[in-house]
Amino acid sequence: MKRSFIREILDVITTETISFAGGLPDPALFPKEALKVCAQEVLDESGALQYASSLGERALREKIAARYCEQGFATQADEILVTTGSQQAINLIALAFLKRGVTVELPAYLGALGVFALHGVATDGLPLEPEGVAPDALARSLERTGAAYLIPDFQNPTGMRYGRQRRDEIATVLAAGDALLIEDAAYSELYFDTRYPAISMQLPQRSFHLGSFSKILAPGLRVGWVRSSHQNIARLLAVKESLDLHTATLNQRLIVTYWERYGLDAHIGKIRNSYRIKMEMMADALETQLPQFRFQRPQGGMFLYGTLPGVDTRALVRRALEHGVAFVPGGEFYPDAGPNDAIRFNFTHTDPEQMSEGIARIAALL
Amino acid sequence: MKRSFIREILDVITTETISFAGGLPDPALFPKEALKVCAQEVLDESGALQYASSLGERALREKIAARYCEQGFATQADEILVTTGSQQAINLIALAFLKRGVTVELPAYLGALGVFALHGVATDGLPLEPEGVAPDALARSLERTGAAYLIPDFQNPTGMRYGRQRRDEIATVLAAGDALLIEDAAYSELYFDTRYPAISMQLPQRSFHLGSFSKILAPGLRVGWVRSSHQNIARLLAVKESLDLHTATLNQRLIVTYWERYGLDAHIGKIRNSYRIKMEMMADALETQLPQFRFQRPQGGMFLYGTLPGVDTRALVRRALEHGVAFVPGGEFYPDAGPNDAIRFNFTHTDPEQMSEGIARIAALL
Repeated sequence: MKRSFIREILDVITTETISFAGGLPDPALFPKEALKVCAQEVLDESGALQYASSLGERALREKIAARYCEQGFATQADEILVTTGSQQAINLIALAFLKRGVTVELPAYLGALGVFALHGVATDGLPLEPEGVAPDALARSLERTGAAYLIPDFQNPTGMRYGRQRRDEIATVLAAGDALLIEDAAYSELYFDTRYPAISMQLPQRSFHLGSFSKILAPGLRVGWVRSSHQNIARLLAVKESLDLHTATLNQRLIVTYWERYGLDAHIGKIRNSYRIKMEMMADALETQLPQFRFQRPQGGMFLYGTLPGVDTRALVRRALEHGVAFVPGGEFYPDAGPNDAIRFNFTHTDPEQMSEGIARIAALL
Repeated sequence: MKRSFIREILDVITTETISFAGGLPDPALFPKEALKVCAQEVLDESGALQYASSLGERALREKIAARYCEQGFATQADEILVTTGSQQAINLIALAFLKRGVTVELPAYLGALGVFALHGVATDGLPLEPEGVAPDALARSLERTGAAYLIPDFQNPTGMRYGRQRRDEIATVLAAGDALLIEDAAYSELYFDTRYPAISMQLPQRSFHLGSFSKILAPGLRVGWVRSSHQNIARLLAVKESLDLHTATLNQRLIVTYWERYGLDAHIGKIRNSYRIKMEMMADALETQLPQFRFQRPQGGMFLYGTLPGVDTRALVRRALEHGVAFVPGGEFYPDAGPNDAIRFNFTHTDPEQMSEGIARIAALL
């Protein structure tokens, strides 16, 4: 299997590089001091360092389930499986459920394409339209695959959000086809204005709703989860156990303690505000300094996606890296050949000065 | 896939149960206070909470490589891949290398059998003899499989160690057959007296040597590693990236900082002493209270394995669980039908009082 171009880019990035490449959260927002306090408390118990249940810590599963309930999505603790990042959850589902194949968005999250390729799951790609994948095309694709992997909120790489009506239409199509939905909600909490309901809410028994603490707390903890029916969770559990026995106990307990002591909402609110401001700054800088770049402002998430008509962005990124700037060419997010002129910019990791300087360097290369 | 009986047993264990079942380290030996100090230092850097390299933290790989060198096994940092426990390493190797099948010991580590079943890797089992698997039988098996998964040090479940001469013979057979060796060294540091050389030292390019911090520091951190050739590591890396992006940054840095501040050897020495004493106590208690149990004292590791001739140990464990005692029937460690009368006892997790009481309760049931 080919290593992803993104990882190759990440590997050559130094502390000097202005990186719009990875999906890196702003490290300034990591609650380091609070986590220090929690670490002291958590490490008082030797259980934090011991083997633990493959399902995940009970206290964490209960808190995640309660949060779903607050959001109007009835969920019990035994409908939650804690995973080693939501990346692992995609593996569990691919290994346990995806026998015929899976429908994916084009462009798609590269990490998911990698999982499907690894496990020999055939993918069928549907172009992302302004409101999401087209329901009629989805219906035809599901006849072949029986399952869809979608990121309806602030998709990676496009940053787009599925429309409310489109969500209903997609749920109807999935239900009619008796198909499975894998709804990757990694960015769902990062809305700037309002939350849209998860498609999974309309298919609570036939969906896998994937969540992560990577974007709302810290990715270096590698803790995510999957919500599904109790029966589906039991099937995923057997695979989870084989993959890594269980997710790190210490990390789960750190999150539980942080959540109990400080709550999640204030912190997530802070992230939303900060990212909204950063997105506006980045969009303003692009419009001013790189007017050739065609894009729409996203309503949340971490990415700005668009095109530089007539520009080969793969060649551009190699030159940009020589000038200390990184981004990901949009064509990389396709299983086969993708467009040459697309770019994904991450706007959460750079500070305002770097943003402006990075875009200026790219503009100078054109 | 069937969930393992071990996990089922672990799931019904309460804090009241006297458990000889899991391979749980003694939690009293976890260096909690030292790790608290390290956590404060590590969490000063926001990098500890950020996404990181799929290969693993450079500082950790360098320290692991240096430790191999000290033990006479020349190794560079780029021959080390950090994994989410050594359980994950078995998955990486199965997915990247085991196309034809794999030769395993009988009885075998159940977690490895689970991985091979999950990924459709056919297993060929060879009975464990007093010195290890038989070289001639191994040679014939490797013609079919091309790879062997072995635990030469204090094997799980039998606790046995391969003889020095047998190690050489096995290395010769592997080299002659141009076969791959997966040497699971999870227990290798837990010798009571002397270290035997890894078989992988004789096959540095054709072997995967699997290490873990679970038994020498804390399993709740979920950090292990695999040592192989640089080229093999590159192939494993692509799979690792798909499975969980990377191993938790925080946990890797905690280990690096602990290692730098306190060293590993003093702590591992303490574990060895404690486990040797516990093994002797357990063996004495078994000889006194359960004289029907036939076993040999191991020279390291965490398990005492033997037989209760004429006893159905699966039936026995169900009754024992009702009386608050857990162990694992030896038959569970076989892919197909195993012996009815075997038992694996873990001796590291219980304290002396529990040990004696647990064995007394089992004796009373017979």
